[in-house]
Amino acid sequence: MNSFLLIAHGSRRSESNDEVRALTNRIKSDAEDQFDEVACCFLELAEPSIPDAINTLVKKGATRITLFPYFLAVGAHVAEDIPEAIAEAKEQHPQVHLQILPHLGKLASIPRIILDQMNT
Amino acid sequence: MNSFLLIAHGSRRSESNDEVRALTNRIKSDAEDQFDEVACCFLELAEPSIPDAINTLVKKGATRITLFPYFLAVGAHVAEDIPEAIAEAKEQHPQVHLQILPHLGKLASIPRIILDQMNT
Repeated sequence: MNSFLLIAHGSRRSESNDEVRALTNRIKSDAEDQFDEVACCFLELAEPSIPDAINTLVKKGATRITLFPYFLAVGAHVAEDIPEAIAEAKEQHPQVHLQILPHLGKLASIPRIILDQMNT
Repeated sequence: MNSFLLIAHGSRRSESNDEVRALTNRIKSDAEDQFDEVACCFLELAEPSIPDAINTLVKKGATRITLFPYFLAVGAHVAEDIPEAIAEAKEQHPQVHLQILPHLGKLASIPRIILDQMNT
């Protein structure tokens, strides 16, 4: 079973966390043919945590999880905290294939979508 | 003269600020036919500030500045700090047309580019 897990920072403002959940739902409906499950999790300040979200997906039968850091820049979170959390999850679930994608700010298409927005 | 100004949060890590500057350069080369000037500025922790960047563009002859908040979620920065800084700039430069775009996390195309990344 093929799953997608978006990792956000998490905020004290529940509205910000809800924006992440709404984005996750939009990805879910766009990716029905690509992923059996699409979920989000938070590094801090909101639930579920990265390990909790991975555990839930594994319990649902995930054998492959694609993780996407929803971060604009490489800071300690992207460079250290997220890889550490995923390394721990790999030890706990050696039978599951976990793959981290580059973070959002790294996507080559970012300049294009910013410019496209002005032309709509 | 038509200018584009990307507003980022700013980081203590110079590498993160350099990522924003590199992104700005990519937008610049993609938007040569759309904007005479493309620049970035930072809400805090890095230079130039929002008012400094606007002043520089106005000195170069900008009559219209499109401002883009490079933020994932609506927090106090997007909801209050940036509009306040822009309201002050409008008072200082009443002859310049300043337009704020929705912040990055709001763009409808975000789910699509995340999914596209996995298919390349």
